[in-house]
Amino acid sequence: MAEFAVDPAFEAGSIAVGDLPLCHVRLQTDARWPWLILIPRGPGLREVEDLSPADRARLIEETVLAGQAVRAMAAAIGFTVEKLNIGALGNVTPQLHVHVVGRRAGDAAWPGPVWGVGLPEAYGADGLDTALQAARKALGL
Amino acid sequence: MAEFAVDPAFEAGSIAVGDLPLCHVRLQTDARWPWLILIPRGPGLREVEDLSPADRARLIEETVLAGQAVRAMAAAIGFTVEKLNIGALGNVTPQLHVHVVGRRAGDAAWPGPVWGVGLPEAYGADGLDTALQAARKALGL
Repeated sequence: MAEFAVDPAFEAGSIAVGDLPLCHVRLQTDARWPWLILIPRGPGLREVEDLSPADRARLIEETVLAGQAVRAMAAAIGFTVEKLNIGALGNVTPQLHVHVVGRRAGDAAWPGPVWGVGLPEAYGADGLDTALQAARKALGL
Repeated sequence: MAEFAVDPAFEAGSIAVGDLPLCHVRLQTDARWPWLILIPRGPGLREVEDLSPADRARLIEETVLAGQAVRAMAAAIGFTVEKLNIGALGNVTPQLHVHVVGRRAGDAAWPGPVWGVGLPEAYGADGLDTALQAARKALGL
């Protein structure tokens, strides 16, 4: 069986947060939104249907946990999340992954989706560390 | 406890397909994509985290089933789905709902997300009936 590996495309725009029981978690390095990406750790996964029912239940629980972590990241960097956006798209990078993004009225893409909008905005070094610590704490990592 | 009701905003752009154990299912009346919407039947739901863990597991199973129905709709109207897109956004209509959309290279928004792109394209009367019947059969409705 092939090993699990993170598609290099994720490495360009995100950093590792840690591993939950099912998913590798990454923080999207775009200061416009508190944003986590969950990547189930199995080889060759593309669609949610490729997971077993037990892993699908794990995925949605880890998605809910990631939503709490996104709220914690937002609070740490001075935002309030008004709506969570959850998306499994994969048109560009087909490896199965779930985006969990904290949205607020007036953000850079509001009320449209965030994917493909404008250019990422770099975190300051302190901001990234603050967001990462808040995410890890909320995820129990 | 308040009754469950579908936000009138859904009625403008979609038609009822039927009810699964957890979700009311609607077909987005936009011939550009085979597209179903799942609306969990509970009052006041906004986020996935508002569901119980048991209902969250039901939601992801119904999402997988809806993906199969989207593939069946696509086949019935002459498309092949290359990638499923799943999204729970709710920035415009906050009632909890999950989009399941069949995507193919070169479609009207490829490879970007479908939400907010251009104007819906009407189904012909036969096409809509064909898609609806394929969806109902695949969903067991």
